[in-house]
Amino acid sequence: MGMGKPSSYAELEDRFSRIALVRESSAILSWDWATMMPVGAAKARAAQLAELEKISHERLVDPKMKDLLARAEQEPDVQSDMWLASNLAQMRQQWMNANALSSKFVESLATTTSACELAWRSARESANFSEIIPQFSAVVDLVRQKALSLSESFGASPYDCLLHQYEQNLTERDVDSLFSDLLEFLPSVLCNALDEHGRSSSFKGRFPIGAQELLNRKIMEIIGFPFESGRLDTSHHPFSGGGPEDLRITTRYDDQDFTSSFMAVLHETGHALYEYGLPERWRGQPVGEALGMVIHESQSLLIEMQVCRSKEFVELITPHIREAFGGRLLDLDEDQLRAVLCKVEPGCIRVEADEVTYPFHIILRYRLERLLIDGELKVEDLPSAWREGMRELLDIEPADDAAGCLQDIHWYGGDFGYFPTYTLGALAAAQLFSAAVVKNTDILPSIRVGNFKPLLQWLDVNVHSLGCSLSAFSLIERATDAPLSTKSFEKHLRARYC
Amino acid sequence: MGMGKPSSYAELEDRFSRIALVRESSAILSWDWATMMPVGAAKARAAQLAELEKISHERLVDPKMKDLLARAEQEPDVQSDMWLASNLAQMRQQWMNANALSSKFVESLATTTSACELAWRSARESANFSEIIPQFSAVVDLVRQKALSLSESFGASPYDCLLHQYEQNLTERDVDSLFSDLLEFLPSVLCNALDEHGRSSSFKGRFPIGAQELLNRKIMEIIGFPFESGRLDTSHHPFSGGGPEDLRITTRYDDQDFTSSFMAVLHETGHALYEYGLPERWRGQPVGEALGMVIHESQSLLIEMQVCRSKEFVELITPHIREAFGGRLLDLDEDQLRAVLCKVEPGCIRVEADEVTYPFHIILRYRLERLLIDGELKVEDLPSAWREGMRELLDIEPADDAAGCLQDIHWYGGDFGYFPTYTLGALAAAQLFSAAVVKNTDILPSIRVGNFKPLLQWLDVNVHSLGCSLSAFSLIERATDAPLSTKSFEKHLRARYC
Repeated sequence: MGMGKPSSYAELEDRFSRIALVRESSAILSWDWATMMPVGAAKARAAQLAELEKISHERLVDPKMKDLLARAEQEPDVQSDMWLASNLAQMRQQWMNANALSSKFVESLATTTSACELAWRSARESANFSEIIPQFSAVVDLVRQKALSLSESFGASPYDCLLHQYEQNLTERDVDSLFSDLLEFLPSVLCNALDEHGRSSSFKGRFPIGAQELLNRKIMEIIGFPFESGRLDTSHHPFSGGGPEDLRITTRYDDQDFTSSFMAVLHETGHALYEYGLPERWRGQPVGEALGMVIHESQSLLIEMQVCRSKEFVELITPHIREAFGGRLLDLDEDQLRAVLCKVEPGCIRVEADEVTYPFHIILRYRLERLLIDGELKVEDLPSAWREGMRELLDIEPADDAAGCLQDIHWYGGDFGYFPTYTLGALAAAQLFSAAVVKNTDILPSIRVGNFKPLLQWLDVNVHSLGCSLSAFSLIERATDAPLSTKSFEKHLRARYC
Repeated sequence: MGMGKPSSYAELEDRFSRIALVRESSAILSWDWATMMPVGAAKARAAQLAELEKISHERLVDPKMKDLLARAEQEPDVQSDMWLASNLAQMRQQWMNANALSSKFVESLATTTSACELAWRSARESANFSEIIPQFSAVVDLVRQKALSLSESFGASPYDCLLHQYEQNLTERDVDSLFSDLLEFLPSVLCNALDEHGRSSSFKGRFPIGAQELLNRKIMEIIGFPFESGRLDTSHHPFSGGGPEDLRITTRYDDQDFTSSFMAVLHETGHALYEYGLPERWRGQPVGEALGMVIHESQSLLIEMQVCRSKEFVELITPHIREAFGGRLLDLDEDQLRAVLCKVEPGCIRVEADEVTYPFHIILRYRLERLLIDGELKVEDLPSAWREGMRELLDIEPADDAAGCLQDIHWYGGDFGYFPTYTLGALAAAQLFSAAVVKNTDILPSIRVGNFKPLLQWLDVNVHSLGCSLSAFSLIERATDAPLSTKSFEKHLRARYC
C-alpha cells in the first residue's frame, strides 16, 4: 500500500470497522431486548436501536464514500488480492443497499418494526391476530415501499430484492425451481415416514428445567461451543445473536419435553460455531462477515439435523440423557431415543417441525409473503389464508393464531424474504455433510466418541474461514463439487425415513 | 417558538436527544459487561464502548454547535423559561467539557480504562497489585493529562476540574473544609460507638443465596422499585446502571452474611428511585439528567442509612427476615436486628463499612488521589501509602491488596475526583432526611407500615423531579433551608450511636 498517504481502500477499512462496532453494539442491545430487558424499557430501547441503525446508515451514505469506493477500485494492490477485492466488492454492495433507502426511511422502518415486535409478543400470548393488524399493516406497507425502492435501484424484482437482503444472488426463480423439485418427492417421503415412524413413542413426563439446562450446556461443550466467548439464555423464540467474540444463543424450555429446548440449543450452536469460525484477520470488515442466511442455516441444520440425529451422535448422548433425567429414562436405549428424535409428525409449529414436514411450513410462508408483498393478500386475510394453506400442504389446521400466523417473529420484525433460506439451508446442510463424511471418513466415528474436531476442521476449511469471500453458491460447489440441488437432501431423507 | 424555521434551541434539543440515545446504549452495554458478558468478549466490548463514546464526543464538538449555542442564547423564549434556560446552560457546559478534550484523547482514555478495568478484575482476584501497574500507570497518566487540559480550558485547578466531572461547582476547598469539620467530631463518635455497640452480636450462619435474593426483591418492591422498568442482578461490585426506564441495579452475595447483599440492594435502590423520578418531560435532555454524584449518593444513602436503619424500618422488615431464613432467626427481634445493622466496626472494605467509619475510607482515598494526580505519589507506592493511611485513620491494616488499594474499581476505570462525593452525599442525606421528617411528620410512621409514598413524594418534589435545573448546593438549601454542612450528620450520628 506504500508508506505515504493512506490509500482510499485503507480509509474504507477504517470506516467499515467503525460501522461494525456500532452494529455489534446493536446486536447486544437486541439480545438484551429479547432476554433481559424489563418491558417498560421497550420504547426507549426501540429509540436506541433506531438511532444506532441511523448512525450506521448515515456513515454508509456519507457523500465521501462514493469517491473512496471509486478510487479504491483503481488501486492495483487491491485488485490483485482476492480478499481485498472481495472486501471492496462487499463494501460497494453495502453502499448501494444503503443508498437505495433514505436515512429517514430506515429510521422509520426500525421504529415501526420495534413497535410491531412488541405488540406481537402480547398478541401471540392472547392468540389474537386482530390486535396487531394496525402495527403489522404499517410494517407490511413499509417493507413493500422498501422492496420497490430497492427494485428501482438494482433492477431486480421487488421480491428478489427482499431475498437479496438475506442471500445475495438468490432469486424467486431459484426458489421456485428448488421448491418444485422438493414437492416431487417430499409428499411420498412423508407418507413412508408416517408409516414407518408414525407409531414411535414419545417421552412424556416432567423434565425439570434446571436439569435440561445442565444437559444442554454439557452437550454444547462436547460439540465445542466456546463458553469463554458466549452464553446460553432463555427467550420466547430461540435465536443466535451477539458476534464472533460474544456468541449469545437462546432457547426456550418445555418441562414436558426436553427435546424441544435441546434441539433448539443444537441448532443455535451450529449458527454460533459458524460465527466463531469466521476469519479473525477480517473481523469488522464486510468480507469477514458470515455469508447469507442459506449458509448460516446450513451450519445450524448440519449440526441439528445431519449430525445430531445420526446414529453416532445418538449413541454418544444416550448416557448423558439417562444421567440428566434418571427416573423412567434410566432404561433409555439408543434406538428408543433415535426413534423419538427422528419422529415424523405433521404439526402446526414450524420450530418444532421434523425435517420432513419443515419444508411444507416454509413453502406456505414463501407463498403467503409473496402475496403480501405483491399486495394480493390483505393483512386482515392472513389468518384464513394461513389455515387454508396448512390444510392443503399438511392436512392440519392450527387451533388458533398463536399456533398459526402469529408463531414466528420474522414478518412482525420486517423480515420478508427470509423464510426460503431455511429450506435452502437444509438442502445445503445435506449436501455439505454428505460431502464431508465422504471426504473425511474419520468424521462420523469421531463424533461417536465425542470428538467433533474432524468435523469442525472440515467446516472451518470449507465454510467458516471463508467469510463471504465468495458467494454461497460458489462455496457449496467448491466444497461439494456440485451446484446446490435437492439430491443430497432427498437421499438423506430416503435413507433415514424410507 | 414560532411556526417557521425551527429555532436553534429546538435543533439543539434534537441533537442532545440523539446523543442521549447513544449514551443510553452505552449504559446497557456497560451493565452487560459487568453482569452478563463472557470474558472473551472484553476486547471487542471495549472497542464498542470507545466507539459509542467517540460518537457522542464527535457530536458534541460538531463545528455547528458553537453557532447554535450562541444563537439559542439570544432566543427570547428560551431565556424567559427557567427550564429551557437551565437546559441550554447545561448544553453549553457539556459542549465546553467536550471541547476541552480531543476525540482522539477521549477514545484513547476509554480504551485504556477498559483494558485496566479488565486487568483489575484478575489482579483483585489474585490480590496482586503489581500485575496492573503498567495498565494503571497508563490510566493515571491520561487522567493527569485530562485534568491539565480541563484546567487550561476552565481556569480551575486540575483536581477541581476532576471534581467537576461528578459535581459541578464543587471545589477542593469545599471538600477540605467539610472533611476538616468531620474530623472534629468523627473520632469521638467512633470511640463512643465502639463502646456502645462494639459488642453487638452479628449473624453467623448459612443464608442461601436464593433466599437472600427473594428477600431483596420483596423489600425492593415494598420501597417502590418499579420492576416493570428495572432488574436486579449480580456483579463483582454493586452498582446502579441503565437509565430511568431501564433501571439496572446489582448486588453481590455472601452466603455467610445476608446483610451485605441486602444493604447493597437498598443503597442501589435509592439511586434507582432517583433516576426513575427524573422529570419525564425532559427525558434525553441535559436538564432532565440527574444532578451530580453528591445528590445521587444522597439518595442512595438516604434510603440505605437514614431510612433502612431507622427503628421504623427495622420493625417493618424483621418479620420478613424471620420468614426468609427461618432456623435460628425465627426468634429474631427488632432490637437484635437493629444492633447488627447499626454495628460499628473499623474494617478494610469501604463498601462494607458502617456510616461512622465510612468517611475515614473516603478521606484516605481523597488524600491519595490528590497525591496521584499531583504526581507526588508514584503508582507503585500506592499499596504502602494505602496501608499507612489505614493505620493512621482507622488503626487497622489490610491483609492484602485485594482488601486494600485493589478493592474499588473507580481509579482503575479512570474515576478520580469521585470518592469525595460519597461522603458529601452522606452529609446531604442526613440534612435532607432530617428536613423531610420535620416537614412531613407522616413519613416515619408510614414507613413503619410499609408505605413509602409520603417519603417518595417529598423526595420527588424536593429532589427527583428537579433534574439538574438548579445546582446541588441550591437544591439542598432550597429543600432544607440551610447550606450543606456537617451539622445534621453529626446530630444523626450522635443520636444513633452515642
